[in-house]
Amino acid sequence: MEVQIAVAKVNKYATSESGDTLEVVERPNGGLSVVLADGQTSGRGAKAISQMVVRKVIGLLAEGVRDGAAARAASDALFTEKQGKVISTLNIASLDLRSETIVLTQNNPEPMFICRGEQIDCLDEESIPLGTSRNVRPLITELPIEPGLIVVIYTDGLTHAGKRRGLPMDIAATLRSVLEDQDPSPQTLADTLLAQAVSLDENRPADDISVLVVKVTSRVGDHVRRMTVRLPIEGVWR
Amino acid sequence: MEVQIAVAKVNKYATSESGDTLEVVERPNGGLSVVLADGQTSGRGAKAISQMVVRKVIGLLAEGVRDGAAARAASDALFTEKQGKVISTLNIASLDLRSETIVLTQNNPEPMFICRGEQIDCLDEESIPLGTSRNVRPLITELPIEPGLIVVIYTDGLTHAGKRRGLPMDIAATLRSVLEDQDPSPQTLADTLLAQAVSLDENRPADDISVLVVKVTSRVGDHVRRMTVRLPIEGVWR
Repeated sequence: MEVQIAVAKVNKYATSESGDTLEVVERPNGGLSVVLADGQTSGRGAKAISQMVVRKVIGLLAEGVRDGAAARAASDALFTEKQGKVISTLNIASLDLRSETIVLTQNNPEPMFICRGEQIDCLDEESIPLGTSRNVRPLITELPIEPGLIVVIYTDGLTHAGKRRGLPMDIAATLRSVLEDQDPSPQTLADTLLAQAVSLDENRPADDISVLVVKVTSRVGDHVRRMTVRLPIEGVWR
Repeated sequence: MEVQIAVAKVNKYATSESGDTLEVVERPNGGLSVVLADGQTSGRGAKAISQMVVRKVIGLLAEGVRDGAAARAASDALFTEKQGKVISTLNIASLDLRSETIVLTQNNPEPMFICRGEQIDCLDEESIPLGTSRNVRPLITELPIEPGLIVVIYTDGLTHAGKRRGLPMDIAATLRSVLEDQDPSPQTLADTLLAQAVSLDENRPADDISVLVVKVTSRVGDHVRRMTVRLPIEGVWR
């Protein structure tokens, strides 16, 4: 099998920094974790918050702390520093090779989508951002790593897209239309969702938008880990 | 323009952990840094060392510390802990959007290659690994970000490949043959170098091998940052 992770990320129009921070860290007991945070508001202040949250979580995960405990620690640190005045969402998607599961940790009111074949499930249980109070608990979902599994995670920029024009996005419908294609790559899924949101915002995103897709494939090939990063460096958004 | 980064990474045959650690971090003033360390020996001990070095460097870069100072700090920390008994190589490739340069920091006896069109330069100045003494200085190379620039960085597994059979790898020749193709992607470059090394080792890599390629293209497209990670999760190497 191969686990493939794809990210597509864009800044709010005319801002030079995204309030969303996404990083990947290797887990000390095998596998890796993708950590995504969206700091309240946008621009430099939001960036500082989401970076602080991601740094905290990644540092703990690298030490072997479990995902849920890392999320609670980041929430406590943020609440202690900001006294509930600044909050941040958090999503952690971990490939845990020891338990052979994907562990999804969520402190984000935005739901996640879990797709298997043509079945699309929306996980929209109540989930509270970090830093809101002393006792923030993450939602934890654990799924066996099996071919065909697709997980879609995003920040609220995706659902806000088009709203100011009264044309909100139907994420499930977009997912369904892409999944009807022949076995889309996770990058195709992420790119399509992001492109539709940007288009609904008339190419001027009203908020930072990040889309993260994890896909398990049955691919049997070499044993090479691969990573590609693409960073546009001109234009208004950096 | 777009900066594209590609990584291909494989473990030493029949070991479950790579002594090489590679991570990517966003720079607080814009851009990002790729940090690659190769801890002495292989397996679990080497992993702990290279992870410690990468964690240290990434933590400092995230705080805005300059690359050379971060490398020195990691060296001092390693020397203090291990008294020169354990060393680690380090390479940092940073896209600094403020200075509009690529900053290459090197504490690795393995050279780097800088390619522009058909010109291939090997940067093989003397460079000392971290943790060897109290006064380790990194080699710093700063290059303007311009289309066509390609930087190739690797750990010593690549040059060790084939040596036990008396068939060492000619990295410059392999690079030249790939660059003669129509504008190869950085992933093609990294994959080809790694595949040749693995083949020279008869599909049983004698050491952990990591190849990192940075390419600047003139691509003008959307303003989306993208990342893809592919992680095989079966077989002997994890």
